[in-house]
Amino acid sequence: MRDRARELDAADPLAAFRDRFLPAPGVVAYLDGNSLGRPVAGVADRLDAFVREEWAGRLIRGWTEPAGSGGWMRWPEEVGDRIAAAALGAAPGQTVLADSTTVLLYKLVRAAVDHDPGRREIVLDTDNFPTDRYVAEGIAAERGARLRWIETDPAAGITADQVAAAVGPDTALVLLSHVAYRSGWIADAAAITAIAHDAGALVLWDLSHSVGSVELALDAWGVDLAVGCTYKYLNGGPGSPAFGYVRHGLHDRLRQPIQGWMGGHDPFAMGPGYTPAAGVRSLVSGTPPILAAVPLLAGLELLEEAGITAVRAKSRALTAYALDLVDAWLPGVELVSPRDPDRRGGHLTIRGSGFRDVLGALWERGVIPDYREPDGIRLGLAPLSTSFTEVHDGLAVLRELVPGGPS
Amino acid sequence: MRDRARELDAADPLAAFRDRFLPAPGVVAYLDGNSLGRPVAGVADRLDAFVREEWAGRLIRGWTEPAGSGGWMRWPEEVGDRIAAAALGAAPGQTVLADSTTVLLYKLVRAAVDHDPGRREIVLDTDNFPTDRYVAEGIAAERGARLRWIETDPAAGITADQVAAAVGPDTALVLLSHVAYRSGWIADAAAITAIAHDAGALVLWDLSHSVGSVELALDAWGVDLAVGCTYKYLNGGPGSPAFGYVRHGLHDRLRQPIQGWMGGHDPFAMGPGYTPAAGVRSLVSGTPPILAAVPLLAGLELLEEAGITAVRAKSRALTAYALDLVDAWLPGVELVSPRDPDRRGGHLTIRGSGFRDVLGALWERGVIPDYREPDGIRLGLAPLSTSFTEVHDGLAVLRELVPGGPS
Repeated sequence: MRDRARELDAADPLAAFRDRFLPAPGVVAYLDGNSLGRPVAGVADRLDAFVREEWAGRLIRGWTEPAGSGGWMRWPEEVGDRIAAAALGAAPGQTVLADSTTVLLYKLVRAAVDHDPGRREIVLDTDNFPTDRYVAEGIAAERGARLRWIETDPAAGITADQVAAAVGPDTALVLLSHVAYRSGWIADAAAITAIAHDAGALVLWDLSHSVGSVELALDAWGVDLAVGCTYKYLNGGPGSPAFGYVRHGLHDRLRQPIQGWMGGHDPFAMGPGYTPAAGVRSLVSGTPPILAAVPLLAGLELLEEAGITAVRAKSRALTAYALDLVDAWLPGVELVSPRDPDRRGGHLTIRGSGFRDVLGALWERGVIPDYREPDGIRLGLAPLSTSFTEVHDGLAVLRELVPGGPS
Repeated sequence: MRDRARELDAADPLAAFRDRFLPAPGVVAYLDGNSLGRPVAGVADRLDAFVREEWAGRLIRGWTEPAGSGGWMRWPEEVGDRIAAAALGAAPGQTVLADSTTVLLYKLVRAAVDHDPGRREIVLDTDNFPTDRYVAEGIAAERGARLRWIETDPAAGITADQVAAAVGPDTALVLLSHVAYRSGWIADAAAITAIAHDAGALVLWDLSHSVGSVELALDAWGVDLAVGCTYKYLNGGPGSPAFGYVRHGLHDRLRQPIQGWMGGHDPFAMGPGYTPAAGVRSLVSGTPPILAAVPLLAGLELLEEAGITAVRAKSRALTAYALDLVDAWLPGVELVSPRDPDRRGGHLTIRGSGFRDVLGALWERGVIPDYREPDGIRLGLAPLSTSFTEVHDGLAVLRELVPGGPS
């Protein structure tokens, strides 16, 4: 099987990208790029240059200069537009970098629930990521809205039919993850968005496990709202800022609740009352996270160079190869991810009794997937930084460690 | 006058700290450390080490290892406790690093307004920083609360008598800045906090212009809530995360509205409903900003080494010296800051007609204060990175440029 991995690596048009990440000494296989992406090699130099030239050199002038560029003040939109072009299938002027995914979720769910007092229901699914569910629960309680839960079968994912059966004239918002954090199931965003719209509802897609891994077409799908994180496949670093998307046509109709000076129409006027900025900028509240965005720029450059279509093609090949190994080597485990490659995102989850105990041994051997309750080992295969040989070597160690495997 | 500056520098026990910041080529005088602090020299190396060793080397393991330390998961509290010890006069367990100042203001003002449905008024002053006012306006509108405005004379600041006249049985929260962003006026936090408490209200102090510059004693003053930013006197870098403080005794009584997985009691259980973490951790919502906190650690080390008492003593001396120069050289300008050193924070604002036009010329000459409407030049004198000679040289250029000055 290792020969097969070597052949796949030799034929991989993106293989050379793997050498453009910083080394991870002692790591045999990093299989958790969907939780924390590896740093691009240029990140340290880029941070060094930023600190010495931009921060130390320009000091407060960095916020507004060079004149014409708008300086750091424009980074939320500029970085947002780059994410949109490289990964979201979205035209400029609809995306900003800001806050954390959770805070952006709060702002956008609130905006959606508040925009039509006649609609009091949020449709979401039981397998959505915890923070999405917790944010929605809190907002439902405070705004007198109801949650309408779709029971998800993690292995089957959320379907258009389920959403069609759940929405109605009382639906304010359909809140779903595009790629499910456990199973890797890709929801049919185009169909589900259309179903939500037919019911008069807005839709918010959490793209945290999609962005930089699968192809997205927010504009073409007619998506209303989206959020996502940048520390997974975009390699922004631990706790890097999130992005939020609000489609053209909604900027004047929706209002997010955290009114901050940096989302106002003229921050330095410091006037008596808040007037939101035009466009998606009003999604910003506090001072934008400038230094924290620097590593992300390096990650975006790699994605821009590789192109999301090639990234997605490699992602499919990586998960298909991993599935072949699981089938051959781990017959007793349960696959909690779709076999259909069109419905399968960039990661796979396999379940087996005792997997919780296996994780520590894997880490000691330099094989690093992550673990999700219950008994799930999640294999996140970041296309730009993961080789087929790495997948082979990691799963070979897992095969040794699972009960009943070779020792 | 320059001899006097040199004498003051020679006698300054903190003078050597200035050399521990990265150079700013071409900058004659940086007089805006209260807006964006300069980077400590070690920041670039520290970021480099973090990226190579922590992020690239530990990868996802960084969140939970080394075992016992809690890894990055504990950074919000650990960095918060360091800020508390070095700068806030606060015991551990009450402070977290998170979000932006604006987002933390939203969370804490909401928590305060929601905690007693019988109290529907927020007391604040017209000269508070815009984002504080905008957040309060938004919350008042959404929660059916009222804003009770105290009209501030910027040169006189907010007084205990004014607050006493404004609070009453309907006051939920008194929301003020400890050091006013324009005038530098230091409010009497102990007296005002006691007045708020006598009325049964909570108090929230915005410490953005205080922290790392003036001495604070949150615990001794009985302060309920506080927020502040870390990119000014704490040298955290552009857009670095903010901190929030909630005193012991309130953790179980207050609930902030942005329910996120990282503020839950067991984030990786990923269970069906949100249960807040014990203590101040529940103020956290999304994934903590780890990389963005790294420069701050370097800034905190300098403050810990110098000690806030010495920092405050130098701050008083710097502003006193600057005042002497303003009096001697700029007789036509208006001082919008207190002459009383006990009521004067780390920055001075002076007003003069045409100051808006002077700013560009100052910047061209390498003298960098900032500007606040109307006609205000604000001189922020960060004690660890500013010399008396620098103050002299900067104001000498201003003297040349103001209408009627020597040319």
